[in-house]
Amino acid sequence: MTKLAALVFDRMTNLDFVGPHEVFARLPDIEIIICSPDGKPVRTDFGMCVDADTPLSAVGDVDILFVAGGPGVGELLKQADLLEEMERIGSGAGWVTSVCTGALALGAAGLLEGYRATTHWAALDILPEFGAVPTRERVVVDRNRITGGGVTAGIDFGLRLAAALHGDELAKAIQLGLEYSPDLPFDAGTPESAPPALVERFRGRIAKLTAERLALSRQAWAARKLRTSSG
Amino acid sequence: MTKLAALVFDRMTNLDFVGPHEVFARLPDIEIIICSPDGKPVRTDFGMCVDADTPLSAVGDVDILFVAGGPGVGELLKQADLLEEMERIGSGAGWVTSVCTGALALGAAGLLEGYRATTHWAALDILPEFGAVPTRERVVVDRNRITGGGVTAGIDFGLRLAAALHGDELAKAIQLGLEYSPDLPFDAGTPESAPPALVERFRGRIAKLTAERLALSRQAWAARKLRTSSG
Repeated sequence: MTKLAALVFDRMTNLDFVGPHEVFARLPDIEIIICSPDGKPVRTDFGMCVDADTPLSAVGDVDILFVAGGPGVGELLKQADLLEEMERIGSGAGWVTSVCTGALALGAAGLLEGYRATTHWAALDILPEFGAVPTRERVVVDRNRITGGGVTAGIDFGLRLAAALHGDELAKAIQLGLEYSPDLPFDAGTPESAPPALVERFRGRIAKLTAERLALSRQAWAARKLRTSSG
Repeated sequence: MTKLAALVFDRMTNLDFVGPHEVFARLPDIEIIICSPDGKPVRTDFGMCVDADTPLSAVGDVDILFVAGGPGVGELLKQADLLEEMERIGSGAGWVTSVCTGALALGAAGLLEGYRATTHWAALDILPEFGAVPTRERVVVDRNRITGGGVTAGIDFGLRLAAALHGDELAKAIQLGLEYSPDLPFDAGTPESAPPALVERFRGRIAKLTAERLALSRQAWAARKLRTSSG
């Protein structure tokens, strides 16, 4: 039995979770524990409900820790207790994983220090705050850390995890079932390929969020350093 | 204001809905009505809850009708009242759309007769039962019908709809935000590209489901013909 704990939270991005979950749910002998900071269902950034029935603190040993991302990730960074629980679970897990800005929570929990990692392209510059090595790839595998890029990268991440756990054949079967063979209407899915004006506009629109995240990341990391040096 | 009605139902595939929803929710001036057969929340094929607060019968004029797919779509085909509501809403909608096997419901409601359309690759052969022209493309646009292929095609579909409603620039901005630029671990997302043995195994695994769907499709279509000829 593979035990997977997926952390969801208020104002997370629904697809960050549901993309990988479609893959997780198709893995053989899997137990998926959907946990949240307080064990209650959460509301995504667009108001959808996502069931969770377990507080993160009640999660024991797992094979895989997964953290989704989204606008609400900043709230996670403020909660030292939660980050300590994440570190406890992640330290013992076979795989420590995230999609999108979920990597910031893993980072703040000390789980990416010294690891190559990725996140949503617009948050990549924050990763060094946690001692991680920011890497512009859709899915980054470094030892037992697997981090995916923004939102839709969760599907690619899920397939990579499926292959790592059960081999290429199963991952291909899941890819076929999900008909994952995009035919992109535009080549605008990355800051490298999108029109520069769009990239600037996106950065501008989230400038305040980015600044907040950076500040929260620094605070969380400083608090962690204090805690671990005095501990 | 763009009014969009999204039909969700028990045992639908979560990503069929959440993929497009991530795009819908980013459209300007959009009202998204999440409706279900009885107006209550539904459970996806893997047990996730999806909020719905409106019965399909209470949906009035909308600009867009959207239907997700999944294992539970057969139950929709059994409900003549529901299909009539779908036909009523779809007949007056600016766009009639689906992802994955949601096309079977649109078809049974008479909304694809004479239209080129697509669905999950493993269900494509059923479309002619409804007088639709099956088309192996990831997203098929025929006049005001837009149908997407299996599961993940919903993201491509969403971007095509965004472009149709608001132009390419907005669709590209959303694509950039969702970082939709897949880097496929394998080329196995279609029956044309996947190893033939995997395709056969998949068809075999869902053979019973496929036979049931075909039978339900024929029954629904025969009932509709009887109804519309006597009406």
